Amino acid sequence: MAATRLWRLRRPMAAAFSGAAAAGAGLPPPPEKLTVRRQAEGVRHIVLNNPRKRNALSLAMLQSLREDLLHDAKGRDLRVIIISAEGHVFCSGHDLKELSSEDDVKHHSQVFEICAEVMTLIQKLPVPVIAKVNGLATAAGCQLVASCDIAVASEKSQFATPGVNIGLFCSTPAVALGRSLPRKVALEMLFTGEPLSAQEALMHGLVSKVVPEDRLEEETMKISRKICESSKSVLALGKATFYRQMAQDLDTAYKMTTQVMMDNLTLRDGQEGIEAFIQKRKPIWSHSQDKKK
Amino acid sequence: MAATRLWRLRRPMAAAFSGAAAAGAGLPPPPEKLTVRRQAEGVRHIVLNNPRKRNALSLAMLQSLREDLLHDAKGRDLRVIIISAEGHVFCSGHDLKELSSEDDVKHHSQVFEICAEVMTLIQKLPVPVIAKVNGLATAAGCQLVASCDIAVASEKSQFATPGVNIGLFCSTPAVALGRSLPRKVALEMLFTGEPLSAQEALMHGLVSKVVPEDRLEEETMKISRKICESSKSVLALGKATFYRQMAQDLDTAYKMTTQVMMDNLTLRDGQEGIEAFIQKRKPIWSHSQDKKK
Amino acid sequence: MAATRLWRLRRPMAAAFSGAAAAGAGLPPPPEKLTVRRQAEGVRHIVLNNPRKRNALSLAMLQSLREDLLHDAKGRDLRVIIISAEGHVFCSGHDLKELSSEDDVKHHSQVFEICAEVMTLIQKLPVPVIAKVNGLATAAGCQLVASCDIAVASEKSQFATPGVNIGLFCSTPAVALGRSLPRKVALEMLFTGEPLSAQEALMHGLVSKVVPEDRLEEETMKISRKICESSKSVLALGKATFYRQMAQDLDTAYKMTTQVMMDNLTLRDGQEGIEAFIQKRKPIWSHSQDKKK
Repeated sequence: MAATRLWRLRRPMAAAFSGAAAAGAGLPPPPEKLTVRRQAEGVRHIVLNNPRKRNALSLAMLQSLREDLLHDAKGRDLRVIIISAEGHVFCSGHDLKELSSEDDVKHHSQVFEICAEVMTLIQKLPVPVIAKVNGLATAAGCQLVASCDIAVASEKSQFATPGVNIGLFCSTPAVALGRSLPRKVALEMLFTGEPLSAQEALMHGLVSKVVPEDRLEEETMKISRKICESSKSVLALGKATFYRQMAQDLDTAYKMTTQVMMDNLTLRDGQEGIEAFIQKRKPIWSHSQDKKK
Repeated sequence: MAATRLWRLRRPMAAAFSGAAAAGAGLPPPPEKLTVRRQAEGVRHIVLNNPRKRNALSLAMLQSLREDLLHDAKGRDLRVIIISAEGHVFCSGHDLKELSSEDDVKHHSQVFEICAEVMTLIQKLPVPVIAKVNGLATAAGCQLVASCDIAVASEKSQFATPGVNIGLFCSTPAVALGRSLPRKVALEMLFTGEPLSAQEALMHGLVSKVVPEDRLEEETMKISRKICESSKSVLALGKATFYRQMAQDLDTAYKMTTQVMMDNLTLRDGQEGIEAFIQKRKPIWSHSQDKKK
Repeated sequence: MAATRLWRLRRPMAAAFSGAAAAGAGLPPPPEKLTVRRQAEGVRHIVLNNPRKRNALSLAMLQSLREDLLHDAKGRDLRVIIISAEGHVFCSGHDLKELSSEDDVKHHSQVFEICAEVMTLIQKLPVPVIAKVNGLATAAGCQLVASCDIAVASEKSQFATPGVNIGLFCSTPAVALGRSLPRKVALEMLFTGEPLSAQEALMHGLVSKVVPEDRLEEETMKISRKICESSKSVLALGKATFYRQMAQDLDTAYKMTTQVMMDNLTLRDGQEGIEAFIQKRKPIWSHSQDKKK
């Protein structure tokens, strides 16, 4: 038994959850801003900024993240969002203090509901959302990665859903994991709480790219700049259509997307792109949803 | 043509099916127990025990397997099930003798129905079911692996659906394969009958772990012991919820699982886990479905 | 900006689309036959035959491809179809000239509709359809690969959906990609237009096999010959059933396929296969859909 406990302490999961246990004396006070938002040249960076609490998705953190995601999302200046984190833990999931019996059922409910709201919000935004992961992502933190459109991870990153260790099965993270990973891989994670390495996460599709830590910034920005070269209105139409058709049967999906291709062609940027290509010049996007006159 | 036949005999598929052809004279009689069940410290081992017939899923074998799966499944003592096999063939699928015209349609129907019942039963059990594969798994035997929650395979294991070779397309195995593998990989297996190596099975998600043969027991037990560290009631709730939400659209899935998280918290083991974590002690599970008073 | 443009020209995507820009003076006239069909020993080869236009899926090309796919598809002589291409581009997707404002909306609509028709037709054919890819497959060309039952690619092959570059999001290709690739991988392709290597395509399930270029023919023919060893009627039943059950929930899928297994057994080739196996002889297929008398 002692060996088992030691073995558990060796594992990263021992550091997976946040709660009172982590709030040691002498530590600095919580940061004023739980998430930091900055934006330049179309790229919005949202940084989870509570490393002392392992960037736990407390109610306040979720509210701050939601605000940063929604802020002027339709504005022409915003073209792509990157979610990253301060510290060596990307995100540790819910703040367990908020889920103990000290808080009432209504509070628990509020936490879970805003969490699901933020996770589904990401797919509803008109711009691509990239998770830039450099460290451990667990429970609802792993769900956050799974819920982004694209995920780039450093080689040292790990992904786990260790809810079983504390008697709270990761049932909401499982919604995102079950749609991002082969069923057996997702279930082994959920049943054992053991982490997936970055390379395993890539092989199984939880992330779309893995790079050495010192190239994480460069690679994420390369993808972001490529996205910024395209028309916002075209990307927004494409993103919404992608998620819509994935829930449809094949025939319905083709009927719907065939109509979307027609609509895309009538966009000003739709015809501009084709004309520019035929004329061998760089397209000049309006980024507007206007139809070609 | 002779070359073709030789080529076929070289391949593992030549040994894939069971039937009269395999019942050579001088072989020992069939074992009294087609499956062997033993249980210790929460782990139930079910061993397919008819290596002489390549562990074919005869009607009797399926009945025996079903009984071993269902036996006191809700009891507190059972925490995880491992399905393994005697001999170098994990399982060769249906017993073809039972599907020949010598048996009547009613018998054929019975075989297929109990087979589908056992495959879906695995997902309905309240404990995780692990396939521990050390050898060839074909046809309904491959379906059995695909139907388990977790699958650990030795490096020498192979997986195939060679029904086309004997004029019986693996249409029921295809249900499980199509939900475990990328479509093209599943179809190439189904159309050609050619085997997938263990590494390919891992890459494509049919199994969740591949290890050298001499580490198969150790790795499977490591996963099992990890599962035994958790609360049975929490795992049961999580497993049932996982399969339920996978059949739902995203919004319905999040609504349902958000409620399940609340229910999980009201379980005695839900609050015990969180309290233990905050108090930095090991949780003491009740494993019961009782609500926290 | 100049650097960006140079960087774009270096990339294979610069050659991805076809259009007026590609129709340089002095080039030979378009081939009389946009697709070439030849058939021997059960194997039909359909070769996209307009390398000068990077095998663009013009309306005429799509019509020719449809005709070659449908031609006597039910005939006993046809057992498998291989789609390949002349030149170093497998297929570059739509002919952009046909999508410019010079053509009217009705023409655009016709192009998208026949494209979706051909893509879904592949799955409805009674024989397996293999994509044999040796080069770049982009946009609707990538969709064509994703829509085949099996795909074998040479190591140099690449796959991309660069519609965003010309303001036309690959929304119809996304239907096929979203069902062949992990969501994050599909979205990174769709949002950036950047190519997937052959090995990445294999890892993520877009293709089922990758081989060195000099073994592409051999490997594709090996799969084709294996398919030709089976009964056409059994494969036809199995293929139709596979796609049907994939759209169903698990219980419905098992009910339906259990009945199909019974139907398969009543086929003349169903009982012939099992009898041949038990009698240790090679089966003699009728390939007919007749029931066993």
